[in-house]
Amino acid sequence: MTPAHGGQTGEPGEDARIVRTRADVARTAFDVLVEEGSEALTHARVAERAGYSKTTLYKHWPSRSDLAAIALEVVRDFKHPSPTGDIRADLVAELTAFRQGVLDLRLDRVLSAMAQWATVETIKQIRNEINSEGQRPIRTILAEAFEGPELDAAVSMLSGVVACPSLMFGTVPDDDVIEAAVDIVLHRARRASAHKRR
Amino acid sequence: MTPAHGGQTGEPGEDARIVRTRADVARTAFDVLVEEGSEALTHARVAERAGYSKTTLYKHWPSRSDLAAIALEVVRDFKHPSPTGDIRADLVAELTAFRQGVLDLRLDRVLSAMAQWATVETIKQIRNEINSEGQRPIRTILAEAFEGPELDAAVSMLSGVVACPSLMFGTVPDDDVIEAAVDIVLHRARRASAHKRR
Repeated sequence: MTPAHGGQTGEPGEDARIVRTRADVARTAFDVLVEEGSEALTHARVAERAGYSKTTLYKHWPSRSDLAAIALEVVRDFKHPSPTGDIRADLVAELTAFRQGVLDLRLDRVLSAMAQWATVETIKQIRNEINSEGQRPIRTILAEAFEGPELDAAVSMLSGVVACPSLMFGTVPDDDVIEAAVDIVLHRARRASAHKRR
Repeated sequence: MTPAHGGQTGEPGEDARIVRTRADVARTAFDVLVEEGSEALTHARVAERAGYSKTTLYKHWPSRSDLAAIALEVVRDFKHPSPTGDIRADLVAELTAFRQGVLDLRLDRVLSAMAQWATVETIKQIRNEINSEGQRPIRTILAEAFEGPELDAAVSMLSGVVACPSLMFGTVPDDDVIEAAVDIVLHRARRASAHKRR
């Protein structure tokens, strides 16, 4: 499982070609995962859709886990909003960005596809890492007010306000639902944080 | 899409046989869905694992949506705890039962498999109905204290405290995380409910 990251070459233009191949394959692998599911994410299918030979794919991404890893680079590029220091505004902005990621990148389908595929150990590791990274900003913000089991609960609860409706009903929450969720958590946080300061 | 529900027959013993066939097929279809994913839930695969002929399966469950519907009857049998009237205890009991359903029935895999498959309209309808039913007890309890966007937020948040860790990391929350989640919601509920009574 060693995805190619460019590499040395004497030929001029080859680096640029490799960069372009990587970008094409990443985008196509991502599209296959989201549109057709994890079962469809094979070398044959990505080669067909991206217009590359299977040999090229096997050379740079020998295993299906490598294809999963490169597909998920698209998710890694997901831009989180910059924190302003206003905890309510920052949490609302994070959840609004997550909702936009469901609409634009179909993060809900990425989540369910990876959950289905996580019976494979290497996929599970990639999945866990991607999801930890995705939750990090919200965890960092909430860690200012919560700790221990309350922190874990609050992170899952705010993730759930976007993840649950999209996975369970194919819908996303309105602004007022996102704001209500943040206020429910922060109402408690004010007490918890006063308690923490003592 | 008309799953067979037994039916008339003159032959003694045939009703019992149909009941047994239904139960066998439901369990096998459920196992295929959970262990192998939605792509594997085909007449050929269920026939093979259950030891029935494909003809029998096609006769009673003509479409793959019918197979999905009968597989999900296993989930419909999921027993929710009886409410006691103590809102905190009832919410903790619901979430603890949901967690047990993830461990025993792999409800997390049912959820992600159905999310993947919901691009098919009939499957989406079955999925939405199953998930609405699953969330109903928690929504009923929370409706005593919340309404509008706060109610929707609270339902997703408490669902998320079990659904998010299981789908995102393959883990379930400890008792103290479940209790923290309920307390975060109820802390706000006390104010909301006082407000509602005015």
